[in-house]
Order: sequence, then structure tokens, then C-alpha cells
Amino acid sequence: MRDFLPADKARRERVLAVIRERYRVHGFDEIETPVVEEYARLHSGIGGDNEKLAFNILKRGMDADAVRAAADDQSALTDLGLRYDLTVPLARFYASNRASLPTVFRSIQIAPVWRAERPQKGRYRQFVQCDIDIIGDASARAEAELVVATLDTVDALGLEGGSVRINDRRALDWMLESFGFTQDERPGVLITVDKLDKIGPDGVAAELRRRGATPAAVDAFEAFLTRPVTLEYNPYGERQIRKALPQGAPHDVVAHLVGIGEAVAASRAEVDVPLVFDPFLVRGMGYYTGTIFELAHPSVSYSLGGGGRYDGMIGRFLGQEVPAVGFSIGFERIVDLVEAADAHGAAAIVLVHDRDVPVGELLALKAALVAEGSRVRLEQRTKNLKPLLERAASDGYTSFATVSAGATRDALEVKQLS
Amino acid sequence: MRDFLPADKARRERVLAVIRERYRVHGFDEIETPVVEEYARLHSGIGGDNEKLAFNILKRGMDADAVRAAADDQSALTDLGLRYDLTVPLARFYASNRASLPTVFRSIQIAPVWRAERPQKGRYRQFVQCDIDIIGDASARAEAELVVATLDTVDALGLEGGSVRINDRRALDWMLESFGFTQDERPGVLITVDKLDKIGPDGVAAELRRRGATPAAVDAFEAFLTRPVTLEYNPYGERQIRKALPQGAPHDVVAHLVGIGEAVAASRAEVDVPLVFDPFLVRGMGYYTGTIFELAHPSVSYSLGGGGRYDGMIGRFLGQEVPAVGFSIGFERIVDLVEAADAHGAAAIVLVHDRDVPVGELLALKAALVAEGSRVRLEQRTKNLKPLLERAASDGYTSFATVSAGATRDALEVKQLS
Repeated sequence: MRDFLPADKARRERVLAVIRERYRVHGFDEIETPVVEEYARLHSGIGGDNEKLAFNILKRGMDADAVRAAADDQSALTDLGLRYDLTVPLARFYASNRASLPTVFRSIQIAPVWRAERPQKGRYRQFVQCDIDIIGDASARAEAELVVATLDTVDALGLEGGSVRINDRRALDWMLESFGFTQDERPGVLITVDKLDKIGPDGVAAELRRRGATPAAVDAFEAFLTRPVTLEYNPYGERQIRKALPQGAPHDVVAHLVGIGEAVAASRAEVDVPLVFDPFLVRGMGYYTGTIFELAHPSVSYSLGGGGRYDGMIGRFLGQEVPAVGFSIGFERIVDLVEAADAHGAAAIVLVHDRDVPVGELLALKAALVAEGSRVRLEQRTKNLKPLLERAASDGYTSFATVSAGATRDALEVKQLS
Repeated sequence: MRDFLPADKARRERVLAVIRERYRVHGFDEIETPVVEEYARLHSGIGGDNEKLAFNILKRGMDADAVRAAADDQSALTDLGLRYDLTVPLARFYASNRASLPTVFRSIQIAPVWRAERPQKGRYRQFVQCDIDIIGDASARAEAELVVATLDTVDALGLEGGSVRINDRRALDWMLESFGFTQDERPGVLITVDKLDKIGPDGVAAELRRRGATPAAVDAFEAFLTRPVTLEYNPYGERQIRKALPQGAPHDVVAHLVGIGEAVAASRAEVDVPLVFDPFLVRGMGYYTGTIFELAHPSVSYSLGGGGRYDGMIGRFLGQEVPAVGFSIGFERIVDLVEAADAHGAAAIVLVHDRDVPVGELLALKAALVAEGSRVRLEQRTKNLKPLLERAASDGYTSFATVSAGATRDALEVKQLS
């Protein structure tokens, strides 16, 4: 977990403000849930592997006997935990507050989550997610609204050229079934398919054989992966989707994928739809039931976000099926790509004052500049001004003036910070 | 802990944006620390009573034997906790990052804290604090900058007329000593003095006698409290401060209080300085060493925030004394006083569409309105439009249009939401 110093924090808040504003314009409404959820809810199975990474909170008022009694069942030690994602809390929120929400509810959640992962480069135990979700709409319109809002937000951050890789879990499942993989082995096969980008078709086939998957199915899959075909990813459309899949893909799944493309195309000025069909995109979470996506950008090789449809989850809390689909921007990944330029256009001035300037005089001067719309920092003069002014510049200050006793606003000589 | 629905969340974010912007203009820089701090740091004694209210996080990977072994020393069960205030984390942050910070560091922290209190009206287990602190300045300039920035922020929220009650722990301590209370009994006496507003001079004297405080000291204190004197709280100045204290108050303490008033006066346009000297203001936290303040507003009887000087705390982490003073706005209290008016001036429109409008058409229409700068929500037409439009209005939408298949931007008939 990290401290954020002023320059970093200012940049983070600027990026969050842009994301919040763009999501909002697209008709999404921000909500907030407590960072702490009930232990039982965080460990109900729908959180997948993340459940193991939850930070759990010790029950208050446990005496020594109660602790000893809980030794063999640690769920008796803890009643709450820090959320590891924003999707489980959203499902709980929707079930609790449904009566006060629109029929189709478009939510924004911009908030930190926690995972007790081993520290490694680029992974943090506390990190911010920016999620938009649409609850109550089973049509391709929902996916299209998410994709359009996400790409518009990425554009607004100055990262034009983003695109979305898209697939459908139902297409994946149908494909694996058509090769002959049994229902039981398909989840394991998906784990291997997820490595296709890294280990290639040969690697995937070899790993599946090593894992003891149905041999004829592995052969059929390998033949499909290595077939001599050139995929044209653009334009995105029915022909390309069907060409990338084995023959006979289910009509409703293909139609849903095509519908998303048509709706995104209608929203965007470009000729090329910024969608790429990727029949081998998997996404880790077990709760996805349909469309899945990942946000790509030409400047980086890793994904900047992702999401998918999870029609089954809300029903777990509500006892009634409600369709839902979400898209999450990986804030910690995207914030480093955004230009550091200070968006605060207003003047920001450092008043470097002698030690003997009366406090009242100094604060009157500061108040006069604040009233003019400037941001003002006071600094007592040091022997060497250079480090002081450099730090101010890195904090976004644009000018400075030296102040001696008797100084007035009119006589102030303001110089640019280089 | 609470869920925030869209209208509440929007209002909270608007108020936070104003607070953040005003603090920033006054030369404060925002930082962020992890919500989780080390258990030992949260339980080092400086957090006072709040330490008992910390949520503690269970160590990861404890087996049954480890839990049993920890039964008699629960600090072995937990290594981390949720912060219960922003001051302890700030002291830790400053000690960790001092080399990268200005000599006088003015911080903003706007963030949630957690306390395991019994739920009661107006008290929450997760709540937001808005703190500004100045580290590295022992002069009255620091207090004055805090007071001016805080009052300006309250003004900017549309809550003009705020004022600050001010006292100094050294004055309190000197006063109790001058009456004859021993050093050992003074902390207990302060707890009783803190109730003066509620139980009056007679109640204070009675409670002190019941607690067995030095009888002569109680008599002297009672005589002082009930002396026939009319205090003029305004204008704030040396004469008023000396008149409110027993004779012979220490010069440096009075001069510091007077200095704050002069500097605040120089910053403000009003004739009356919005400061009230209150010689019996106590503030609960044990770590205060000098000035203490509370933010008052004529619209409410409770305080909207407070703070004080805590020159000893940073030294606990740094091993070197550094002066520090802070002022915190109680966000949960102030947010309810702020007008709910939507600050987003831009048009916000609901498109109520028939079920059969093609998705592409609908999203093209939405994109055209977004491009014009509008916020756009899609809603499928329901039999009774009224609840749908009322909810949209409460979420800040200002207009609506009905959309049938074949609709175009130019032909759209936009009506005001009443």
C-alpha cells in the first residue's frame, strides 16, 4: 500500500474527475458502498479466487476463550472484511436498494479495493477501480453503452486510439463443446486457453494433453487453432465473427455480438468500429455468463480494463434473476499513461517572505491574491531559494514573488517560475 | 455504515469538490495514505479513546495452533487496522516522506475513517473527514491560515456566517493550576469542564466535589465561574482575552491568541473578526498542546469541525520535535446543511424510447446529444411515465424527449422536466 505525495495525488484526482464526469454524461449515476462488507457475503463463492485474498476484520470484544473456541473455524473470528472488488458490493447494493433505483440502473463506482497479494511490481494491496455497470438490460444496448462510455472516457484522458477486445462466454463454451471437451473439463481447459497469447497453439495443445483432456477434443482444437486462415479483424461484423469460429456457431450469440458492433458504430464518428472479436479471450472471473471484454491501447501490451456480463449474480442476493453487465477501467494502470500537465489553469503563486514580515501583512497579501483567483503558498525565505522554487514548480505553482515588511499587493513583483 | 444512492452521492461529491478546491487555493496540497495502518502504530497511545474503537484486521495465514497461541495476546492475531482518524496517519506520512515535502508542509486529507462505535443517530462507523494541517510552523501564522481557509471554504459552500471558537490548552492548564488543582487531577478536571455548556457552573462545581478534587481549588474555580462580569466576545482582542481569564495569564499564550486574531482580521473583509475566545473550550483529544478550535455556525447548535495544535506528535514518529496544527471539517455534519441544488449547469436529458427503436438509432441519438454537452439517460417507455420522470428529476435530469423508431436529433422534441 502506498502513500501519495502532492504531485501524484493531484494527478490522480484530475484523472478521476475526468472519468467521473464522462461516465456521468453518458447517463451513469455514481453510488458508494461501505468499504467493509459482511464476511459471509465476501466468501459466498461468487468472488472466485479473490475471496482468498480478502482482508478479514477481527470481531470486536473477543475474549481469550472466544478466540480459543474459534481456532478451528476462523470464520468465528471475523464478521467483516474489506471488499476485493466492486461487483459483489454492487450486487448487494442493488438487492438492498432496488425500489429506489431506475428500472435500468447504470451505476458508477470509483473506489479502492483491497487484496492481500504478495507485493510485486505494478500490483498493490490497495488500488482504485473505476466500474460502470448496467443492471436490468439483457440487450446488446447495454454492452454498447458501456463500450461507448469507456472509449469516450479514454479519449477524454488524451489516450485516443483505444479499442475493445470482445468475446462471449457462451461462444467459448459452445466451441469447446463442439470440439468434444466434456462439461466437467471445460473450466480447466479455459485456464489453458487463457494462456494462448503467451504460449501459442502448440503450447496450449501440449498443456491440455499433459492435463489429460479428452485426446480427440485436443486434436480437433489444435487443428482449428492452426488452420490456414487469415482473419480480418476490421471491419467488425458478422462475417468476421463467423469466420473466426468453427462452423455452426449459435445464432443468438453471434447476433448479440453483431448487435453490439452496430450500436457502437452508430455512436462513433470513425469508419472503423473500435472493436476486435477475439474468440479466445477468456477473462478469469467465474461469474461471467455472456459477453466479456478487455480494453486495449496501442501504447501498452497489457489490458487497461475489462468486464463482462454476469446475469446470474444479482439473483444470488435478490432471489430473482436480473441481467447485469459491467466494464471496469484499471485506474492504477491508466493513471500512469495520462499526461502530468496541471489542468488547473489558474495562476498559482509562491510568496517567499522575510522572517520579519508581520503575520497580518502576510495574510492580507495572501487573501488579496486568493480573492483574485490565485492559489497561494507561503514560504519563508531560505538561503538557497532554488530547491524551494523547484519543489513549488513540481507541485504546480507557476510564479513567485518575494515579500519584505511593508509590501503591498500593488507593489508586488511577480516572476514566472521556469 | 451506509450505502449512498445517486442523489446523495452526487451531493457529497459536489461538496467535496468545493472543499478540495478552496483548500487548494489557500496553498494546501492534497495527499493520500492507505486506509490501513500497522496495528502497533494505531495502538501507540496517541490516538486516545479512539484506539479502542479501531477495526483490526486478522493476520493472513493463521492456522489453528497460531490462533490458540494468540488467545491471551490478541495483538498476535492482528497486524493491521483501519485508521480511526487522519492525524496519526499524517504524522506517520510526514516522518516517512519529509525529504520530499516543503519546509512548511500544508496538507489536505479528504478521506474516510472507521470507528467501531455503537450505531446511534448521526454517528456512523465509516465517515469522511476533511483535514487541513500545517507542519513545521510554530507561529500564529499557521493557526491563522487554517482558520481563514476553513471559513472561506464554509462560505464557498453557501454557509456564510461561520465562526471559530478558540482557546489554548496552555491557558486552560495555567488557569486550573492557578486555582490550585494538582497536576495529577487536572486531566480529570478537564473532563468535567468540558460539560460546562451542558451542566452550568453549579453542575461543574458539584461534579468536581463528587470526584474529590482539591476543595479549595473547586471553591476558587466556582467563584471565578460565577463572578459578576459581562464578557464582550467581540471585537476579539487582548482586552477581551485577559478579561475572560483570571489575572496574570501567561504573556506568550495570550500573545499567540492575539496574533491569530490580528492575522485573521487582516485576511477578512468584515469588521468583526469571526473568532470567539472561549476559555472553557476543552476538545477531547489528549494530544493537543496549544491552540484548540471549534467551528460554529448559527444554523446549528453543535460544532461543524475542530482541531488544534499537537506539537508533540510528529516527534513520536520522527524522533525530532516538529510543530504541527490541524483543522478538520466534520464532513457528515456539513454535507446535510448544504443546498442540494445541482451544480452541473449543463443540460441533462432523458430519452424515453419505444421498445422497438433499433439499438443503433438509439445510441446514435445519445451520442449526438452527448457531443452537444448533454448528460443523457436512456429509459424504455413504461405505461406510467410519471415515476420514471420524477426519479430522473431527483437525479438531476432537467428535460426529456420521447423517441420512436426513425427519430432523428433534429426532429427531437425536448420538454422540460418540472
